[in-house]
Amino acid sequence: MTGRFITFEGGEGVGKTTQVSLLADELSARGLSVKVTREPGGEVVGEHIRSLLKSFSSHMDPLCEALLVFGARRDHFVKLIKPMLENDVFVICDRFYDSSLVYQGVLKNVSTEDIMLMKKMVLGDFEPDLTVVLDLDPEVSMGRLSTRSLNLDAYDCMQKGEHEVIRNGFRKTAEVFSFRSVLIDASGSPARVFSRIMGAVQPLLPPMTARRAAAG
Amino acid sequence: MTGRFITFEGGEGVGKTTQVSLLADELSARGLSVKVTREPGGEVVGEHIRSLLKSFSSHMDPLCEALLVFGARRDHFVKLIKPMLENDVFVICDRFYDSSLVYQGVLKNVSTEDIMLMKKMVLGDFEPDLTVVLDLDPEVSMGRLSTRSLNLDAYDCMQKGEHEVIRNGFRKTAEVFSFRSVLIDASGSPARVFSRIMGAVQPLLPPMTARRAAAG
Repeated sequence: MTGRFITFEGGEGVGKTTQVSLLADELSARGLSVKVTREPGGEVVGEHIRSLLKSFSSHMDPLCEALLVFGARRDHFVKLIKPMLENDVFVICDRFYDSSLVYQGVLKNVSTEDIMLMKKMVLGDFEPDLTVVLDLDPEVSMGRLSTRSLNLDAYDCMQKGEHEVIRNGFRKTAEVFSFRSVLIDASGSPARVFSRIMGAVQPLLPPMTARRAAAG
Repeated sequence: MTGRFITFEGGEGVGKTTQVSLLADELSARGLSVKVTREPGGEVVGEHIRSLLKSFSSHMDPLCEALLVFGARRDHFVKLIKPMLENDVFVICDRFYDSSLVYQGVLKNVSTEDIMLMKKMVLGDFEPDLTVVLDLDPEVSMGRLSTRSLNLDAYDCMQKGEHEVIRNGFRKTAEVFSFRSVLIDASGSPARVFSRIMGAVQPLLPPMTARRAAAG
């Protein structure tokens, strides 16, 4: 596969959506083919599963939730991620399987063994080329969440204790998967955070990829 | 668990729905608590997953399909089957995990190993007390299907070759799980088939369970 697969991980309110969007713009400006996607979701089936998870996750058995997330992931991988990578595209994905280890694993007690069995089934040995783990004090991320619009979903409506658990979960995945992960300090302005991220992304870019002049 | 769990398996048109209903009536008439259910399905989450599978199964990745079926099964097991069995209920289920081995496994090439890994995750060592495998010549079952109403769903719209593959798949599961399975000749009238089934169900019934007199 000739494209590159970059995933973003971290708790709610750490700035994933903003940074995914900044990175997509930057790579496009450098003339690269870019596809932004997210999990759970992706294609039609994945997005339907996402809706189901959003509607029922609060009263869904955690292992059932994990199986649905991995079902969506399989569809996403086979129908979108893999074909795009084979076509030289830079695929940027908001959440991937590290989120299963944290949300269904650490937070809801599905065993790491079960989650890694599902990972192996669904993805084999496939791994992201780079995982950007955004790390932020829960006080700050919760403050960001409170200024968002009213449609906070189930994932966002968590208490501070849970935000701590989630943050520590992602710090752990960044450590376990250190071969592909970079832990990024997500405090400060979006531009400052983005410059830290670009430091990690730069080595993945084809040589001589210069940003096109604004007038070009 | 003090109840009993009886599953029905077999291809389309072999008479599962009719026989499930006859058995439920018979056990109720003997004063037993009975719950009829089906897979994929069961409770709210399971029925939503069922709808998704019905809508998309023709263009869904087979492993994605298997993960969704087992997600629904987990919800069904935790929220309905297990609590009912703990409350002394006879639970009669139209399809269970043998159907995954045949439909996603034999028919769509998901490996037996992956399916049995999901089974172990979702159900542990739990097994039905009895699996009734209805066996019928595809010529006959397809004839029955053609007389049904027009809303044949995707599972029913299969060619004869597939019906053969499915029949052989279930004959194989009946053999592999012979400790809990009985292969029933599903040809002839519903009443004759039912009397064959009752021969297999009888040993599961509490002693002295006599059918209440019709006048009672």
